[in-house]
Amino acid sequence: MADVHRISLNTATVREQWTLSQAIEGCQRHGIRAITPWRNQVAEMGLAQAARRLSDAQLQVTGLCSGGLFTVPGGQRWNTMIDDNRRAIEEAATLGADCLILVVGGLMPGSTDLESARGLVEDALHELAPYARQAGVPLAIEPLHPMYAADRACINTLGQANDLCDRVGDGVGVVVDVYHVWWDPNLQSEISRAGKDQLLAFHLSDWLVPTTHLALDRGMIGDGVIDLPGISRWMTDSGYEGYFEVELFSTRWWQRDPDEVLTTILTRMNNAI
Amino acid sequence: MADVHRISLNTATVREQWTLSQAIEGCQRHGIRAITPWRNQVAEMGLAQAARRLSDAQLQVTGLCSGGLFTVPGGQRWNTMIDDNRRAIEEAATLGADCLILVVGGLMPGSTDLESARGLVEDALHELAPYARQAGVPLAIEPLHPMYAADRACINTLGQANDLCDRVGDGVGVVVDVYHVWWDPNLQSEISRAGKDQLLAFHLSDWLVPTTHLALDRGMIGDGVIDLPGISRWMTDSGYEGYFEVELFSTRWWQRDPDEVLTTILTRMNNAI
Repeated sequence: MADVHRISLNTATVREQWTLSQAIEGCQRHGIRAITPWRNQVAEMGLAQAARRLSDAQLQVTGLCSGGLFTVPGGQRWNTMIDDNRRAIEEAATLGADCLILVVGGLMPGSTDLESARGLVEDALHELAPYARQAGVPLAIEPLHPMYAADRACINTLGQANDLCDRVGDGVGVVVDVYHVWWDPNLQSEISRAGKDQLLAFHLSDWLVPTTHLALDRGMIGDGVIDLPGISRWMTDSGYEGYFEVELFSTRWWQRDPDEVLTTILTRMNNAI
Repeated sequence: MADVHRISLNTATVREQWTLSQAIEGCQRHGIRAITPWRNQVAEMGLAQAARRLSDAQLQVTGLCSGGLFTVPGGQRWNTMIDDNRRAIEEAATLGADCLILVVGGLMPGSTDLESARGLVEDALHELAPYARQAGVPLAIEPLHPMYAADRACINTLGQANDLCDRVGDGVGVVVDVYHVWWDPNLQSEISRAGKDQLLAFHLSDWLVPTTHLALDRGMIGDGVIDLPGISRWMTDSGYEGYFEVELFSTRWWQRDPDEVLTTILTRMNNAI
């Protein structure tokens, strides 16, 4: 059973109903003590104001979503991408976020060269890790489900993310999102390999059967087939002491009363994890 | 460039337009020399009649789709499953098929236990391999894309399939379907590991961006982002000398004139592979 005090709300879960301001108030109303906002919401509120509101609400900022999109050609577009990621690191530092979540990017437009895309991710991490170290905000590599390899993230297993951490060194770690990695036969061993220092965040949702949309049909925890207690145990056994963050992209749940969504999350976390 | 004489038609590609009889005639009309039919089509025509028609048409039967669905509870349901797979092996032998393609099955209903499901697959393979050896029809384990782990196949990487081959021994091999494995960072090394003896079939289609349906939106070769020439080269470099089999599940292509579908396949195979 997950302690309610260890639940974090990723604001994507209620993004169609609530602004960041409303999400902060929602967390307070429901006793949720941690949150991961998205950059566009922070920008909408204004960075300084967002930092103040989150601090006043005594919310732990378990991450900022998201940096990444590294798979661009060189030259000006590369520099623009690096600059944007440096800003994201600074924003995360201003918010006191535990990490910057990375969606690393898929294939370059018109390309079928996965290996080169993966090389660009590594190049960008090498370039950004010093800024992350300096800012005290680790970069959290998120392996995405292989069904997103082409258009969102070419890092698709926790093993690949751990390999990158080994090669880049301090300043990077991983986020384990069960939706992306639950199927991986090496999941337990790779969670263990990442270990306490590298396990920066833990994202929860569920895999529905059937799944009707590749991006926007994630299930509420407990409604699907992912072994949430088992994976949670692997995290805990590997020394993870952070939050259990709920992140749903779901056109179904975006149509519900967001207070009901939060109540459901709290109930399910008590029962399912 | 793939030799046109090495192209095989998986009849799923035109299943909504053509019966098996029409598909056989279509292959002859277009100079295609190999085919992989599905069991329901064979049953519809009658096994003996199908064997005679395929033989008369001098079509190489590169596989029979499909056996598997191993992830059932024990007892009577297990025995029924084994019996059905033995029949599938016999049918494949009667047709002179090069292998029996396996869709191994996903999680058991109501279960979240992937490891147990994977154990059942191994149990079934151990039980069926002797029949396959006796019949001279190897079982082709097909790793399916991780997005099918829950409901179709809990073997999701070529590495897992190769591990199973190592443990079960003679009578089993693998099929490499690019749609399922193209994203895998270990693909090249696992193709090489499987090697000539274990690489039983090679299935081609393409990954569309965007993909609008999890099961029925495969792309025509050349329309997507899979590095078909690269993966084909890895197959050839590993000693694969078999057919290049085109297998599309696509509501788009099922609406097209099937002769146009075959013409497109032949053109694309000359250009894209």
